[in-house]
Amino acid sequence: MNDRFSKGYKTIKQYVTKEEAARMIEADALADVAPDLRKMIIEFAYGDVYSRPGLDAKSRAFVVITAVVTQGVAPQTKTHIKRGLHAGLTQTEIVEALLQLVPYIGFPRVQNALTSFSGVQTSAERS
Amino acid sequence: MNDRFSKGYKTIKQYVTKEEAARMIEADALADVAPDLRKMIIEFAYGDVYSRPGLDAKSRAFVVITAVVTQGVAPQTKTHIKRGLHAGLTQTEIVEALLQLVPYIGFPRVQNALTSFSGVQTSAERS
Amino acid sequence: MNDRFSKGYKTIKQYVTKEEAARMIEADALADVAPDLRKMIIEFAYGDVYSRPGLDAKSRAFVVITAVVTQGVAPQTKTHIKRGLHAGLTQTEIVEALLQLVPYIGFPRVQNALTSFSGVQTSAERS
Amino acid sequence: MNDRFSKGYKTIKQYVTKEEAARMIEADALADVAPDLRKMIIEFAYGDVYSRPGLDAKSRAFVVITAVVTQGVAPQTKTHIKRGLHAGLTQTEIVEALLQLVPYIGFPRVQNALTSFSGVQTSAERS
Amino acid sequence: MNDRFSKGYKTIKQYVTKEEAARMIEADALADVAPDLRKMIIEFAYGDVYSRPGLDAKSRAFVVITAVVTQGVAPQTKTHIKRGLHAGLTQTEIVEALLQLVPYIGFPRVQNALTSFSGVQTSAERS
Amino acid sequence: MNDRFSKGYKTIKQYVTKEEAARMIEADALADVAPDLRKMIIEFAYGDVYSRPGLDAKSRAFVVITAVVTQGVAPQTKTHIKRGLHAGLTQTEIVEALLQLVPYIGFPRVQNALTSFSGVQTSAERS
Repeated sequence: MNDRFSKGYKTIKQYVTKEEAARMIEADALADVAPDLRKMIIEFAYGDVYSRPGLDAKSRAFVVITAVVTQGVAPQTKTHIKRGLHAGLTQTEIVEALLQLVPYIGFPRVQNALTSFSGVQTSAERS
Repeated sequence: MNDRFSKGYKTIKQYVTKEEAARMIEADALADVAPDLRKMIIEFAYGDVYSRPGLDAKSRAFVVITAVVTQGVAPQTKTHIKRGLHAGLTQTEIVEALLQLVPYIGFPRVQNALTSFSGVQTSAERS
Repeated sequence: MNDRFSKGYKTIKQYVTKEEAARMIEADALADVAPDLRKMIIEFAYGDVYSRPGLDAKSRAFVVITAVVTQGVAPQTKTHIKRGLHAGLTQTEIVEALLQLVPYIGFPRVQNALTSFSGVQTSAERS
Repeated sequence: MNDRFSKGYKTIKQYVTKEEAARMIEADALADVAPDLRKMIIEFAYGDVYSRPGLDAKSRAFVVITAVVTQGVAPQTKTHIKRGLHAGLTQTEIVEALLQLVPYIGFPRVQNALTSFSGVQTSAERS
Repeated sequence: MNDRFSKGYKTIKQYVTKEEAARMIEADALADVAPDLRKMIIEFAYGDVYSRPGLDAKSRAFVVITAVVTQGVAPQTKTHIKRGLHAGLTQTEIVEALLQLVPYIGFPRVQNALTSFSGVQTSAERS
Repeated sequence: MNDRFSKGYKTIKQYVTKEEAARMIEADALADVAPDLRKMIIEFAYGDVYSRPGLDAKSRAFVVITAVVTQGVAPQTKTHIKRGLHAGLTQTEIVEALLQLVPYIGFPRVQNALTSFSGVQTSAERS
């Protein structure tokens, strides 16, 4: 485990539970096809970028949620809404951030993100 | 001046100087071709959306900057970086938000946004 | 019910059946997570925009179908093809509009839209 | 000159003046780098697609304008607004089509398209 | 069967098995709604474009895979990864091409493409 | 100079002249606003990704050119066409790759990329 990986692994725990962090490595669904992807995400995204000083975890979560909603990438929208909640954003703040996007990206992508959000809530209630 | 317009006009002053707010209405470049656009932006974007409770102006600015950078719309990137600075974001916070986007949208659009940001700084120094 | 809402609600009936219009409000799937979204769509999209003079409902339907197909947003493609048919577009006109997009956005998104269209037809035949 | 080319060349005259149609072939700016591109556009886009029955020229123009505005491709936005005007769309119809896009793609791309439109008008007044 | 169609049909066999090529025509899922689409794909995409000299089939496959992954169109990503394997690309080459995209389009779309790739592998193992 | 940086710096010389490689570091236009961006590009994009085994430089260049053309990011299109030529792609191969994109992303973005390409040629002839 190099420095960037352990720094990334430590940072990611601000966004996911300890159990999920462990599962991300042990049960990587893409380990067979692209064994280096997970490592690249932890080292680069979390080790090099998320862990930089100068911006708090909540603001980073807003930025990432907005990016994936604007691109319309569905599984990542759900993932990063969950990570934003873990990082301390409230449900109200996330919903307001999504509504703030309407004048900039239009209703369809916002509506799809709110549907994902609704799915996050439902699965949270079940657990 | 209806309620939504005056609410929007009041809200926009959190993001631009008083002089700019006045200029937006008096010297609307698109007044000839689409006289209702400016009204629609102030009433809907600022009156209905930006002015909602539940999310502070700085977070709204992060969300909007991220949306326009992810779409790659150039003049709006410059505009909303300036409005974000006016709303209280620091230069460091904006640069960090842009770098946070690299793992999600790639280097090209981040690089173009930082070039816009650099233009904002230069014109600020000149004035 | 304010003016914009009732204007929007009246306008939306050019695009959906009376039953669907009622269901949009009574059975809003996102009412829990974002109670204001439906209101915003009816007031702004239908009340302020769709109801403007100067362009007929069929042309508005073409424009909206094209926008959602070009963005590649799947559920909205199906929704707005149905609304276009309700507003008076024929199946031929919609298929031709989609084929007209091939030289501008490429085959993949057009193919996905035609697959949605095919789904709209099938569900219409079933009912 | 094959059949598809002459069919395309005939069709394109619904969208541009006779002089422009001639210039498109004689003064093709990309003739050195990609000599087949112009031929491909005339044969495929205009010969195979635009010339299909079942949808009138004005509706095709709406569809193409919407596609290029939604993608945010600047020179093509200007080009196809001009072609739409030539095909018989009025200025009001085009502006209304662009405003109709606001709830679906957001203000920035609509604003940029209206700026292009404003450029089309200005150059028309000059000539 | 015209020249462009037979040229396209011959070219497509570099990318799919003989059985699949036959099935594309006989069992076209969109034959009811848009009977000309399949013909347009074979004549234009394969007959006019893929069959041009100056670039080998493997490079064309890289280009098409990259385009559909960058757009985020899911069924086409799977389709063109399979066609690329048929055209002679190795699994390693495709995975490396996808990882090469990370710095340009970000992790989410690459991750979704690798998930599709993983699905291609799994279905190949089953058959 | 750490290992990733020197690996990236060595790799980048497959894509740019020695003089350009030096200039990228010494005359970084964004050094004031985001001093870490250049380092991030060299360490991550070139050190971690481009330098991976399993795919040759020409194929990587095809993949990157396609990604930036599909996104429609103009300065990067020019940059990566130049880097592709330096990595050994011929002008014919690049033009064919761009034409191969027409059925997948449509004419507008291909046309804009060919215009960039034409600019690369012209500036090459001048030097």
